[in-house]
Amino acid sequence: MRPIVSSLSEDLSLRIDGSRLWHSLMDLAEIGATPKGGVCRLALSDLDRQGRDLVIAWARAAGMRVTIDRIGNVFMRRPGRNPALPPVATGSHIDTQPTGGKFDGNYGVLAGLEVVRTLNELGIETEAPIEVVAWTNEEGSRFVPVMMGSGVFAGAIPLEQAYAARDTEGISVREALQAIGYVGDEEPGQHPMGAYFEAHIEQGPVLEQEDTTIGVVLGTLGVRWFDCTVTGMEAHAGPTPMGIRKDAMQVAAALIQEVVAIAHRHPPHGRGTVGMVQVFPNSRNVIPGQVKFSIDLRNHTDALLDAMADDMRATAAQLSASTGLAIRLESVSSYPAQPFHADCVDAVERAAQALGYPNRRMISGAGHDAVYTARLAPTGMIFIPCKDGISHNEVEDAKPADVEAGCNVLLHALLERAGIARG
Amino acid sequence: MRPIVSSLSEDLSLRIDGSRLWHSLMDLAEIGATPKGGVCRLALSDLDRQGRDLVIAWARAAGMRVTIDRIGNVFMRRPGRNPALPPVATGSHIDTQPTGGKFDGNYGVLAGLEVVRTLNELGIETEAPIEVVAWTNEEGSRFVPVMMGSGVFAGAIPLEQAYAARDTEGISVREALQAIGYVGDEEPGQHPMGAYFEAHIEQGPVLEQEDTTIGVVLGTLGVRWFDCTVTGMEAHAGPTPMGIRKDAMQVAAALIQEVVAIAHRHPPHGRGTVGMVQVFPNSRNVIPGQVKFSIDLRNHTDALLDAMADDMRATAAQLSASTGLAIRLESVSSYPAQPFHADCVDAVERAAQALGYPNRRMISGAGHDAVYTARLAPTGMIFIPCKDGISHNEVEDAKPADVEAGCNVLLHALLERAGIARG
Repeated sequence: MRPIVSSLSEDLSLRIDGSRLWHSLMDLAEIGATPKGGVCRLALSDLDRQGRDLVIAWARAAGMRVTIDRIGNVFMRRPGRNPALPPVATGSHIDTQPTGGKFDGNYGVLAGLEVVRTLNELGIETEAPIEVVAWTNEEGSRFVPVMMGSGVFAGAIPLEQAYAARDTEGISVREALQAIGYVGDEEPGQHPMGAYFEAHIEQGPVLEQEDTTIGVVLGTLGVRWFDCTVTGMEAHAGPTPMGIRKDAMQVAAALIQEVVAIAHRHPPHGRGTVGMVQVFPNSRNVIPGQVKFSIDLRNHTDALLDAMADDMRATAAQLSASTGLAIRLESVSSYPAQPFHADCVDAVERAAQALGYPNRRMISGAGHDAVYTARLAPTGMIFIPCKDGISHNEVEDAKPADVEAGCNVLLHALLERAGIARG
Repeated sequence: MRPIVSSLSEDLSLRIDGSRLWHSLMDLAEIGATPKGGVCRLALSDLDRQGRDLVIAWARAAGMRVTIDRIGNVFMRRPGRNPALPPVATGSHIDTQPTGGKFDGNYGVLAGLEVVRTLNELGIETEAPIEVVAWTNEEGSRFVPVMMGSGVFAGAIPLEQAYAARDTEGISVREALQAIGYVGDEEPGQHPMGAYFEAHIEQGPVLEQEDTTIGVVLGTLGVRWFDCTVTGMEAHAGPTPMGIRKDAMQVAAALIQEVVAIAHRHPPHGRGTVGMVQVFPNSRNVIPGQVKFSIDLRNHTDALLDAMADDMRATAAQLSASTGLAIRLESVSSYPAQPFHADCVDAVERAAQALGYPNRRMISGAGHDAVYTARLAPTGMIFIPCKDGISHNEVEDAKPADVEAGCNVLLHALLERAGIARG
């Protein structure tokens, strides 16, 4: 292996073609384009097929070899000098939310393609192969669970379980994959990977608000979901004196505030959200007899998540004891925290700094395919700002300069990891 | 006027027939009886007509003269010795909620009828006439507003406005009244009334919890209804750090707790309820961008209600300033507090005490027809306990002994006010 720093300094002048990348993004966004400027390209729909076909056509034109696995993940490989080395991979997904945007996922796939096009144009050979991956069904809007392709790849989701998932019309993943002709023959997971980088829009407001170009992603937050039910006694708002009420909404309100307090008690990455509230009977002049609400707790280590969940349970028990109202906390689901590999994190940070882009270390609050690749190979992510932190929305937007910057960071991180073949 | 105390002591042995009253209640409850033991007899429905016809038939059998006004209020008069005196009235309503009970309203009308039957049986003549009133559409479940008949009678609701109210099928009050043949020819309000007493189940838990038989009602709480809208910024629960969130649910939760705190700051009758909450977009992993909720403030004087409303507005403004989130408070409707007449309150209390019934002074949190009669004539109310404080429900229930006690109090209060004609 060559020393990394010298490699960076030697090749610092290398740049991707931001304009070409942007046009590819806009071209792909035509497939499933919505009137409001977004994209609706649901996983394994015919539009998804058209998108896959286009990306594969571009990859083949760039000299890449394409393989597909049994869950429909697409691997597009640019050979390295040393075929014994596992590929250094990058990618994301091209399926979108029903009212999705042009950048979420698509950016990661096309940034990888742009790196290959750049290397081709400059005649640069790498030691390890470079591979661009388009993962199947990251969004989970048509078929649950989310991050299905990378989940199957990582062995976290059994293939047969993924195949059996059905959309609201009763069509299974297996049927949909067959219908669009994307059942490959590779066994998922039987595909070595030396490292994985994923470029993505932040889907949050931090980079934009801090006027920072590159987010060096340390990992993703773990998530614990609960349903909470507070049961009091329904009664008329008029004739029932304050002292003898069992007002489920008041106890729920106290607990809803505690969800945020718990997040603040576990800084700096603790997050607490109550997104969903239902009140029964939900009538203006009736004291609520029952309130159900969702709790979303996040943090960057599972130990901290455990502590937050314990805090939640203790707070609920205490509140139940002091008010006499029943409080039930049900665990709905749980995703472990996923730290990324220090080498990959450092590679992203070195590239951003060497290229002079304002950057910061940060945690991803949302899930990405990289969460699953991190179980198999050293993984890192590159975030770029998106407008107002908005994604999963047709108004999702990103600046061409940021799109270009993130891809330049990806180029240098991939080169550091794959190694430029010399002489 | 005869001295009141001597009247009470002389006639203290007078009692109504509790069993006859109970059977009349059960008979009337057959009309619109529901499988769960309740009553569904919506205002101005054919079942309401059947109920009215039965009550009027009973009244005529008791020798009473029946007149009906243009909003369908039914006045059933037992003559007094002195026809120049205005009648001392009592009553309530016989329409019910869709899932109503046997007692709400019906009790007040049939208790009045039972008093007349008792006086007939005992051959007691009163100086002033005694009148039993069945008010049209107290519940407001089919046609809004509530307390329509007594409201029109008191001039609080214009007759034409009441006529124009339509049910969900588009039928107007005028049409419904015509259909059941209950458009009378009396001009509402052109009907003098010397005093008005109304016996009613409490619709709250206080009497039952304190094992008290009679509630001496001092008046009804005034009500202020508001809609509150907290507007923050919708964002993903994952990628958005706590420090930069504009979480509408958290600010709403603080304000929801303040509604109760404000009630406690205005004791002893201050009440505050948030019965209805809507969260947008109401998704588990999205920080709510907007929360709307109802506020119901009650107190026993309008000055205290003003103070509570001012407190609410100041608290909302302060919270908006400290959080940066917009908070809009909209006044939805407002009912003034209605104190009852001291003479009538005292008459009820004297009767309860003389008869040896455990009793307490209390405020009615709910509205009743008596709220409107109080604008025209000295008014008082008699509460009896109801099971678990529940009304507006098919499980609504009351004990025969309490039903009897309340009617005995009504008998003596009416006699005190109407005066027994002697010799």
